[in-house]
Amino acid sequence: MKTLIIYNHPYEGSYNHAILESVIKGINNNYGEYEVIDLDKENFNPVMNSNDLLGFVKHQAVDPMAISYAEKIHQADHLVFIFPIWWELMPAMTKGFIDKVIYPGLTYDYKKNGFSMVSLLPKLKSTTVITTMNTPKVMYKFSYGNALKKALIKGTFKKSGMKNVKWVSFNMVKMVKPEKREKWLKKIERKFAEM
Amino acid sequence: MKTLIIYNHPYEGSYNHAILESVIKGINNNYGEYEVIDLDKENFNPVMNSNDLLGFVKHQAVDPMAISYAEKIHQADHLVFIFPIWWELMPAMTKGFIDKVIYPGLTYDYKKNGFSMVSLLPKLKSTTVITTMNTPKVMYKFSYGNALKKALIKGTFKKSGMKNVKWVSFNMVKMVKPEKREKWLKKIERKFAEM
Repeated sequence: MKTLIIYNHPYEGSYNHAILESVIKGINNNYGEYEVIDLDKENFNPVMNSNDLLGFVKHQAVDPMAISYAEKIHQADHLVFIFPIWWELMPAMTKGFIDKVIYPGLTYDYKKNGFSMVSLLPKLKSTTVITTMNTPKVMYKFSYGNALKKALIKGTFKKSGMKNVKWVSFNMVKMVKPEKREKWLKKIERKFAEM
Repeated sequence: MKTLIIYNHPYEGSYNHAILESVIKGINNNYGEYEVIDLDKENFNPVMNSNDLLGFVKHQAVDPMAISYAEKIHQADHLVFIFPIWWELMPAMTKGFIDKVIYPGLTYDYKKNGFSMVSLLPKLKSTTVITTMNTPKVMYKFSYGNALKKALIKGTFKKSGMKNVKWVSFNMVKMVKPEKREKWLKKIERKFAEM
């Protein structure tokens, strides 16, 4: 089983980085294969320019990095996204990854009606999105409508035909006790050791 | 009255560009002043790197472009954002503008409790967000939870203390008749002629 991890956090000392390490530990405990796309380290350009947009219309991607990321997704059994929630949503880096890689002709295509979508990822079994935020879970849900879940899980991944998409949200990360953060990491490690 | 327009679309022939022109026409009809920040043309870098993140913690912005954009916002009576909805949300470019310009010490600060926010923009009277999408209005609301409104209008602009924030959503832009698109442009022109 091969897991592709798409990681987006610019600071090595972040809790997101600790989550990344726990995911890898879990996979290793299970003798699984993995690969990490570190969007910040790889200097991915998240901006859609006019060529990317024209390619979108023609279903022909042009950004070589986006194309190579889509190839890696094609080979994966599991996808994992790890990023922080900033202003209720993913950072620009992850949004640009979505715009340029979840792309017609790369990961999905349109049905004949030109509207419904069908996945081009037959091998992919599941996708897990792991996020951190300092907003309480109940506030994010009732005040901000679980915007990430609605837009990314439902309105992007599921809409484009991806199956078994799960969201793991760690809330109030700065405010909770270190023991809780440590417990969460162990939980993540176990989760990926059992997959 | 001075209006600052923050514009994000890479293609000159887009409906977003026609909206931009209508906003400008309306302002001119009213003998108003305006300035356009064209994020794509100006090659704004939407990525938060580790220095931007450290600056966020210290409330000291480091990106010279973000600082200069915040200075323009300080001088504005009205803000207008124009961008397309891609995958239920703003493009990476606009998300990065939010992350790097709606920034502590630039446009808002924290109250003594370290949590509630207070605006640093005493001159700003209103903010209008104009978006385009091909999803029907009712579907965007009920299936995708009006994710943009929840995250950007409520969870960013209002949360950081900005007043009179309005969202104007044009839906099913590709599918409607040209006459309807033309009518919308006239409506936008009138709106900004009356402000």
